Amino acid sequence: MGARTVLTKNQTMIEKLQTIVGETHVKTDADSLKIWGCDWTKHYTPAASAIVFPASTEEVQAIVKLANAEKIALVPSGGRTGLSAGAVAAHGEVVVSFDRMNKVLEFLPLDQMVRVQAGVLTGQLQQFAIEQGLYYPVDFASAGSSQIGGNIATNAGGIKVIRYGMTRAWVLGLTVVTGKGDILHLNKGMAKNATGYDLRHLFIGAEGTLGFITEAEIKLERQPRDLRVLVLGMPDFNSIMHVLAAFQARLDLSAFEFFSELALQCVLASGNVARPFPDATPFYVLLEFEALSTAVEEQAMQVFEACMEAGWVQNGVISQSETQARNLWRLREDISETIAKFTPYKNDISVLITHVPAFIADIDAIVQANYPDFNIVWFGHIGDGNLHLNILKPANLSKDEFFDKCQVVNKSVFETVQKYNGSISAEHGVGMTKKPYLGYTRSKEEIAYLQAIKQVFDPNNIINPGKIFDLT
Amino acid sequence: MGARTVLTKNQTMIEKLQTIVGETHVKTDADSLKIWGCDWTKHYTPAASAIVFPASTEEVQAIVKLANAEKIALVPSGGRTGLSAGAVAAHGEVVVSFDRMNKVLEFLPLDQMVRVQAGVLTGQLQQFAIEQGLYYPVDFASAGSSQIGGNIATNAGGIKVIRYGMTRAWVLGLTVVTGKGDILHLNKGMAKNATGYDLRHLFIGAEGTLGFITEAEIKLERQPRDLRVLVLGMPDFNSIMHVLAAFQARLDLSAFEFFSELALQCVLASGNVARPFPDATPFYVLLEFEALSTAVEEQAMQVFEACMEAGWVQNGVISQSETQARNLWRLREDISETIAKFTPYKNDISVLITHVPAFIADIDAIVQANYPDFNIVWFGHIGDGNLHLNILKPANLSKDEFFDKCQVVNKSVFETVQKYNGSISAEHGVGMTKKPYLGYTRSKEEIAYLQAIKQVFDPNNIINPGKIFDLT
Repeated sequence: MGARTVLTKNQTMIEKLQTIVGETHVKTDADSLKIWGCDWTKHYTPAASAIVFPASTEEVQAIVKLANAEKIALVPSGGRTGLSAGAVAAHGEVVVSFDRMNKVLEFLPLDQMVRVQAGVLTGQLQQFAIEQGLYYPVDFASAGSSQIGGNIATNAGGIKVIRYGMTRAWVLGLTVVTGKGDILHLNKGMAKNATGYDLRHLFIGAEGTLGFITEAEIKLERQPRDLRVLVLGMPDFNSIMHVLAAFQARLDLSAFEFFSELALQCVLASGNVARPFPDATPFYVLLEFEALSTAVEEQAMQVFEACMEAGWVQNGVISQSETQARNLWRLREDISETIAKFTPYKNDISVLITHVPAFIADIDAIVQANYPDFNIVWFGHIGDGNLHLNILKPANLSKDEFFDKCQVVNKSVFETVQKYNGSISAEHGVGMTKKPYLGYTRSKEEIAYLQAIKQVFDPNNIINPGKIFDLT
Repeated sequence: MGARTVLTKNQTMIEKLQTIVGETHVKTDADSLKIWGCDWTKHYTPAASAIVFPASTEEVQAIVKLANAEKIALVPSGGRTGLSAGAVAAHGEVVVSFDRMNKVLEFLPLDQMVRVQAGVLTGQLQQFAIEQGLYYPVDFASAGSSQIGGNIATNAGGIKVIRYGMTRAWVLGLTVVTGKGDILHLNKGMAKNATGYDLRHLFIGAEGTLGFITEAEIKLERQPRDLRVLVLGMPDFNSIMHVLAAFQARLDLSAFEFFSELALQCVLASGNVARPFPDATPFYVLLEFEALSTAVEEQAMQVFEACMEAGWVQNGVISQSETQARNLWRLREDISETIAKFTPYKNDISVLITHVPAFIADIDAIVQANYPDFNIVWFGHIGDGNLHLNILKPANLSKDEFFDKCQVVNKSVFETVQKYNGSISAEHGVGMTKKPYLGYTRSKEEIAYLQAIKQVFDPNNIINPGKIFDLT
């Protein structure tokens, strides 16, 4: 009887959802529940009740009002490329997918601004910008499938942050439906608006726990011109920091990425790209800048030569064409994909740039002392203090044994993050995977304020419950 | 008896404040109460109970705890250059001044970041940056006396927003004491930190109503090089928009300001600067860019010539030296000071750049129809949609008559702002002067969320009560 009641209740709910979005826009088949119930995090078993596909802000609002009335938990779902299980429905939630809200609504050339629905793909937005002779500068590996709403909800970063900042820097306005069911138009696209608390910035990075982002006004930028890519080989980690300082003093860098020889070896093993220069070095840097004039290019060469003379750089190559630039970028961008076969244990952390060398040395020492058979692949956006720590699974360990050991390492990693006042999640969000560790970056008092703010916008704990923190 | 009780209570409070900050750091003399009780807004009579000068975050915390225990209202006070009465103590509050917290605490060259106390002057920070070979790009007329804490609390803008953004863009971290008395270290200077709601951005622009900003981590930037200033004369307002689009497509502008012939006449009357070129035109634009190479300079000249040919520009002059650049800037920067003698009624508003021409035409028509003897001086940061509307007092009207009439105009202005989805305060904040008009920019629902957030951080309504909105 109990089960039957649940089923009946579920049926009623699905009928009500169908009334809102139309019969064909609610899915409950097993395949759909599995596909839309999870993201790129593979640790959780998806267990959604239904997937609903609204077509407008008003339909989203109707769904939220229904959810409040019937106490149904909702999970927002974009391109499902998240790495912290922020969009996973593991507890019978209804998933609200933005796949149908994928339209560019308006373009204002004088404001260099575009208004889009939340389900527009990052790549689609980038392409639209190019067609207007402009540029959307937030870029990362999942741009082809991630949605702008998800980017905003996680304040996505990527490979150009050193010059262009995070997604936050490009959001001029948001339309949201709060957990209470109010439609708010936040900041309405203005560059300047000093009229009380900027709720837009509260929703950016909130991982969909305060409400649904349904539309956004996005700032575009002029296209970069004549990008040059340099790949440099260096003898030790400290040299990277000297080279960063030297280049930054003279050039506007649009990227400053690093990776280790081990990371490079993984990429080379794929057979798709060649070593940038014959001699291996322990570390490599990839940097990018606009060669707006020959003077800028000459300046870059002067800095390079000074770095060679100082012994910070042992080898270097500069792109002479767009194809070469793209190939050099692959040395860095293919790392994630090519280490996947080693079942890496990943962590996305950040500290102030000043603390990076000491932080890396500490972590290396901890792993070395406790798990001498673990190999660490370091790479990341060192120009903004963001490090991707990847521990490769030794061949003789089972997946379960390996992950159990990594959970222990995790604690040491986060303690070290805390020691250096860093972040346990630089750009991947908290979701469910980092939730137990939030206290290493945010204080007890801060977390209490986060929880209180959640209750202001979502008093029934309807929207993405159990993400970032639990309510006590 | 009643009065005596109050006095005694007051005495006790002052003694307790003295215990926290030291005897000499509480002022209650009439002159001090007047000086620290108000800002540049002159409509309110200062009526502070005492001025207290803490020296540390911990002393601020002790003051807030005392205020909560004894239900004393506190008003944060920086350089007191505000134009919306956000830092005015008109109702017997205790003013908390940051004048003693004026130290640069730490500089991290690799992070290009400086940690400062809230009372550091904007100009002091600019100077410190220059001494490190770097640049703090937020700049405005009151930089010499405004404090960084106040800049952050109001998200100050200024003349370089088109390139460098508002103060918000430069704040990497904040230390705050909330209205409840908690010390929070928000974001700790990191470029990337995706660990839940970014409370830092909630405090930026909150006008001190959620708590006190006591310290900040500020990002610095490389110094601009070879700045060129162009002043152009144009036949009508629409030409300004064409010229903006033309230059923006080819150059990275660091300023795009406009002013009317009437504004220019006021500046010329001061006798300190000369007309930029012999012939008067209805409108002028001042734009600035970095001439990083001769190629950039040639590009600027090409755009200028194309604008002349199109009839959008009738005259132009470009700076050939730093002195010339400074003098051209005075044509724009001296406007506020030189119109002061006409007792102008000021409004600081913004709309999307796209809507600026229609918005200005609407306002001109309204004023013309109702007050044909009123002269409007228009100027502002048109590159970011921010307009300063100044109505000059006709000589035959008394100050009171004039301001009464302006209150009526005000309503029409804000209705027009609302029609174009604009902001009733672009960069001056809400404080007390714009409080009655907040609903023209923020919806009823939004304001309810602002009030609820206020109650989360300041449940006893201790910190800057009655600013931005009233609690019902």
